[in-house]
Amino acid sequence: MAKPVLINNNGLRVNPDLQKERDTGTFNIIELTNIIDGGPERTKRRHELEQLLFSDPVFTNPNRAFLSKSQLYDYGVQKSVKLFHLKRKYQWNEEDYFMAESLLRKEISLSLHHTMFIPAIERLATDEQKAKWLPLAQSFKILGTYAQTELGHGTNLLGLETTATFDQSTDEFVLRTPKITSMKWWPGGLGKSSTHAIVLAQLIIDNKSHGMHPFMVQLRSLDDHTPLPGIKVGDIGPKIAINTVDNGFLILNQVRIPRDQMLMKNAKVSRSGKFTSVGNSKANYATMMLVRVNMTNWAANILCGSVTAAMRYSCVRRQSALKPGGEEEQVINYQSQQYKLFPAVATAYALMFASQQLHDYYNQIYPQLARGSYTNLAELHSQSSALKAITGDVSVHHSEICRRACGGHGYLWYAGIGEAVSSGASIITAEGENTVLYQQTARYLMKQVALNVSGQTLDGFTSYLNNDDNYVNPIQSSEHCHDLQILNDIYQNMANRIIKKTAHRLHADMSSGLEQHIAWNKNMIQLVRSAQVHSHMSIVKAFITSVQSLVLSPVLKQVLHRLCVFYCLYGIINNSGDFIETSSINLNQLELMREEEIKLLSQIRPDAVSLVDAFDIHDETLCSVLGVYDGNVYEKLYESTQREPMNKTDVHPSYYKYIRGLLHSTPQSKL
Amino acid sequence: MAKPVLINNNGLRVNPDLQKERDTGTFNIIELTNIIDGGPERTKRRHELEQLLFSDPVFTNPNRAFLSKSQLYDYGVQKSVKLFHLKRKYQWNEEDYFMAESLLRKEISLSLHHTMFIPAIERLATDEQKAKWLPLAQSFKILGTYAQTELGHGTNLLGLETTATFDQSTDEFVLRTPKITSMKWWPGGLGKSSTHAIVLAQLIIDNKSHGMHPFMVQLRSLDDHTPLPGIKVGDIGPKIAINTVDNGFLILNQVRIPRDQMLMKNAKVSRSGKFTSVGNSKANYATMMLVRVNMTNWAANILCGSVTAAMRYSCVRRQSALKPGGEEEQVINYQSQQYKLFPAVATAYALMFASQQLHDYYNQIYPQLARGSYTNLAELHSQSSALKAITGDVSVHHSEICRRACGGHGYLWYAGIGEAVSSGASIITAEGENTVLYQQTARYLMKQVALNVSGQTLDGFTSYLNNDDNYVNPIQSSEHCHDLQILNDIYQNMANRIIKKTAHRLHADMSSGLEQHIAWNKNMIQLVRSAQVHSHMSIVKAFITSVQSLVLSPVLKQVLHRLCVFYCLYGIINNSGDFIETSSINLNQLELMREEEIKLLSQIRPDAVSLVDAFDIHDETLCSVLGVYDGNVYEKLYESTQREPMNKTDVHPSYYKYIRGLLHSTPQSKL
Repeated sequence: MAKPVLINNNGLRVNPDLQKERDTGTFNIIELTNIIDGGPERTKRRHELEQLLFSDPVFTNPNRAFLSKSQLYDYGVQKSVKLFHLKRKYQWNEEDYFMAESLLRKEISLSLHHTMFIPAIERLATDEQKAKWLPLAQSFKILGTYAQTELGHGTNLLGLETTATFDQSTDEFVLRTPKITSMKWWPGGLGKSSTHAIVLAQLIIDNKSHGMHPFMVQLRSLDDHTPLPGIKVGDIGPKIAINTVDNGFLILNQVRIPRDQMLMKNAKVSRSGKFTSVGNSKANYATMMLVRVNMTNWAANILCGSVTAAMRYSCVRRQSALKPGGEEEQVINYQSQQYKLFPAVATAYALMFASQQLHDYYNQIYPQLARGSYTNLAELHSQSSALKAITGDVSVHHSEICRRACGGHGYLWYAGIGEAVSSGASIITAEGENTVLYQQTARYLMKQVALNVSGQTLDGFTSYLNNDDNYVNPIQSSEHCHDLQILNDIYQNMANRIIKKTAHRLHADMSSGLEQHIAWNKNMIQLVRSAQVHSHMSIVKAFITSVQSLVLSPVLKQVLHRLCVFYCLYGIINNSGDFIETSSINLNQLELMREEEIKLLSQIRPDAVSLVDAFDIHDETLCSVLGVYDGNVYEKLYESTQREPMNKTDVHPSYYKYIRGLLHSTPQSKL
Repeated sequence: MAKPVLINNNGLRVNPDLQKERDTGTFNIIELTNIIDGGPERTKRRHELEQLLFSDPVFTNPNRAFLSKSQLYDYGVQKSVKLFHLKRKYQWNEEDYFMAESLLRKEISLSLHHTMFIPAIERLATDEQKAKWLPLAQSFKILGTYAQTELGHGTNLLGLETTATFDQSTDEFVLRTPKITSMKWWPGGLGKSSTHAIVLAQLIIDNKSHGMHPFMVQLRSLDDHTPLPGIKVGDIGPKIAINTVDNGFLILNQVRIPRDQMLMKNAKVSRSGKFTSVGNSKANYATMMLVRVNMTNWAANILCGSVTAAMRYSCVRRQSALKPGGEEEQVINYQSQQYKLFPAVATAYALMFASQQLHDYYNQIYPQLARGSYTNLAELHSQSSALKAITGDVSVHHSEICRRACGGHGYLWYAGIGEAVSSGASIITAEGENTVLYQQTARYLMKQVALNVSGQTLDGFTSYLNNDDNYVNPIQSSEHCHDLQILNDIYQNMANRIIKKTAHRLHADMSSGLEQHIAWNKNMIQLVRSAQVHSHMSIVKAFITSVQSLVLSPVLKQVLHRLCVFYCLYGIINNSGDFIETSSINLNQLELMREEEIKLLSQIRPDAVSLVDAFDIHDETLCSVLGVYDGNVYEKLYESTQREPMNKTDVHPSYYKYIRGLLHSTPQSKL
């Protein structure tokens, strides 16, 4: 079917190589776009938001590459405040607001107000406290953040050193930063923006510590924004990306707050200094887990963008000739290029489906938690940790491959992928460093194995650990390689055996008399590996489940089925040791899979561009001269140099300051 | 032996955790440092240069994190020009000069003048031309660069589109950029600095093309630095790192140069327009190869720096308790942390030795090339391509692991590792994109296999391809796992079998009637893989050879032997599929190796800090608050915030512009 030749808004024709790709795609892109968005009405809503945002020059500054850090922050605040106004004006719901943040690649300054501050009040404050603070926060009378991490203490909550000492004489808490390592460090929006912070501190009453609790602390005057007495607050300095955000430090020097500014949903301190634990502090985990769940979505989005840019560029870019003396070839036609980008696009879909399913699971479990039922908390914690960790790892890994697949030009800022990779890298160490999270998942897995060994049948995400040890991989033909159930079983068997072997060793070490913590540390590499294979298997399962359960046209079903098979085979072939070692595949099957994998490259090839077009990422969101929808890459690259301030004059000031003297100096001239 | 407790120049005591590490190291650091430097006199010379450079505030600006791109360039020019003056004043030889560049992390602007421009004149110009241009370049009367890559054409020299047409009537060449894709794009120093460039262009005489040749083109006036008529030149805009360098574009609009500005060592054009090929154009490859050889050294240096920072920080940083209720633990004592950093430090040594050996090989072969003997050219080309590619890949991979091993703080600019990773990433796509280079190595490997099949005994880097197919891995005990000869053989067998299998398939495909280029593309994934395993094996061999051949004290010999064994085992275990598939190891041996690998972690542990201290990287070169020699990490982190311009005032201008209005607005207020 002939499709229209698109003309972009510069009046430039779509690059013919790219148009050809679009003409030969096999499926209806819009059908897939709607699935990605979560329904046609969400696609429509997204287009409305794109229309609104990208018609506003505040959101489309092409010169932000040249802003200093302070200017970047200023620009991020401008965008945040504009978004807040728009949210209020158009009465956006949360979904709309977060979609808007996402369309702006989260390059804004004040997002913690919505992602951490307000949810923390909702979950940690009493009804009375909520009635006081929520309206202030929701109407932006105050701007807040959540201050937990300290300079010397991250993941280990128990190690936090900030203290809140109850002074019964004045009915106040006195907050204090006892040492340099105890200053709060990292919270977004803390440095220059927030008027308030929920500060996590060790509660001390009569010299006795009662553990970590949240305190509402005003940081800055609501009149003139100056820091209040006893508050030393500032920006922690430049980061490798995300410099629109003023991540901050906070030193508290005997700061007094009224007793009712301890958020007391889960624990109370009375007028007389009596401490009572009233709720379940587990409720607080829900906020942390939601942040992680949302990060899986961010990770998926980053990879969708990177592969969109690299795939389109690889169709436009021509280099060398496949056939000696022939025309220069589109680089996408080199097998090695396909082997960089097709795994990336398959992984992007895998992460997206896995993230969607994790969101669904969270939304299913959260009402239970809110009701005080914690049956599924451990599993949600394990699974959100696992998926936050692996989606971050995998998204950055494949995005970086996409960047490199653009050759030298991928190194340019305007290519957009480098900045995406650097932003995505924050996912790996923020909100629970990945290796720590994998260990938390491992802890859950070890418990599940122990339950299973004790005779209990497991359900949920670890039900595959019920499987016994007599698995035989049935693959004998190329058709078998396309059977998603078989592929799923291969991954499950691999994960099952690695996890059980680790559990066995851990158990043997403890049985031999090692203390638990020593045995744990002795097996940590294998414990982390166990969590990683569980995570990988979870992504595989999510992709397979989506392909099997989504209601799709036959053509699209075939396209996604193929992509899913490719994803599974790629994962096996590139981690073949894990699968061979666990007898999940044999060497003949590995060879067979390699052959199928190569065949699939040719089958995916016609849909290469359609698969990324279906992500339907607006040029302003993608922000990549290599990935522009119209494919006029070289024009855009050259155009980008016009924005470079160094090109405003023919001769740079450095010439007068340094180069002229060098050129005109003689060897004898002194320095 | 008790060692002195060092006091750094701030009067701060060395962090006791770090001092303890130094006290318990098992070997003499200086012995190893001298080996790394290439002898005690080179260590001494380096210290002298460090003393000279870092006593000069031009080279120690701690605020460069806050410079705009234009300011960064200005700062880079200032440093370059200062270096040039120092070179002249102290009559540095090349080795000194490049050491100085390296001590400054190459964060200068004009390095191509020495690394590309002058060497290109030396190798491409006639004696007469050299007599004219070299003195001008060496005395900085002119500043030059080398302009080959075009916007639309990188690796494929044949595709370059810039033309140099001979005009017999005026005895000139007319240089022209025919299309947007033909503008020169990427050369360092081209944008704003260079007065001259050696431009690669298609030579055209009487409408006939004679291929690519080098032309000396003046770009800017020597009086006022303005671009000459017909020259459009500028900066290509921001990159993900290395923004001190003005990578540039160049559009030539009928620029006329005298005939004698074609560099005519290898080909001449006479007054009457007669073209004669006189030399061997292969001589030009020598420059390109030297650049790649030098990049292996840069790659090694980057990893040495990253692991120095991460290792020291991991000894200072404490997190959680290994034993419940115990003191917070140095993170280096977690097995998972050791499994990030010990492979990194082992790899740093491996890359360094491999780079040193490649330099030696280049220095051995170059005189042959200069004499016009090209027997070893193909092997040098293959090996320098392979090692440039793998050292870049591996250095960036492990450096990024080091960055992540520092947790959230690794994301800070002042941690230094992020910038190092981003700079190192340039190695992967510059001067021959890595996948293209691996293919070039693969081409050589396939030729060598064919020679071997035809009965020829191979020598040099591919001699292991002589081995037949009856290898049996003899490992049966843990002692065997420490036998470097056995480990070497395992790698050689793995590489041998993968390469031969690929050669066999390629041959079979061609025998079945496929055209060569189609068969090549059909097997490209395996061809690239073949080159990668050859490259990995080459690094292993270089490390083993160094350990075996260096004259070392027994203690140091043991330390390096252990590290080398660890490097080999780690490489096998983490690519186990390759080794199992080729019957280079079996599953029992894999298990045995895993156990040895874990044991080695404990054996390496006492020397963890000594192994990075031995790199002896000056704090000013390392440029990492996490990696400072004295270990006063938290003080340095907080100190770094004092430099942040946003912290100069309590209230940021954004408050007045945006935040105040938000806080004081009512829901009804308009945008």
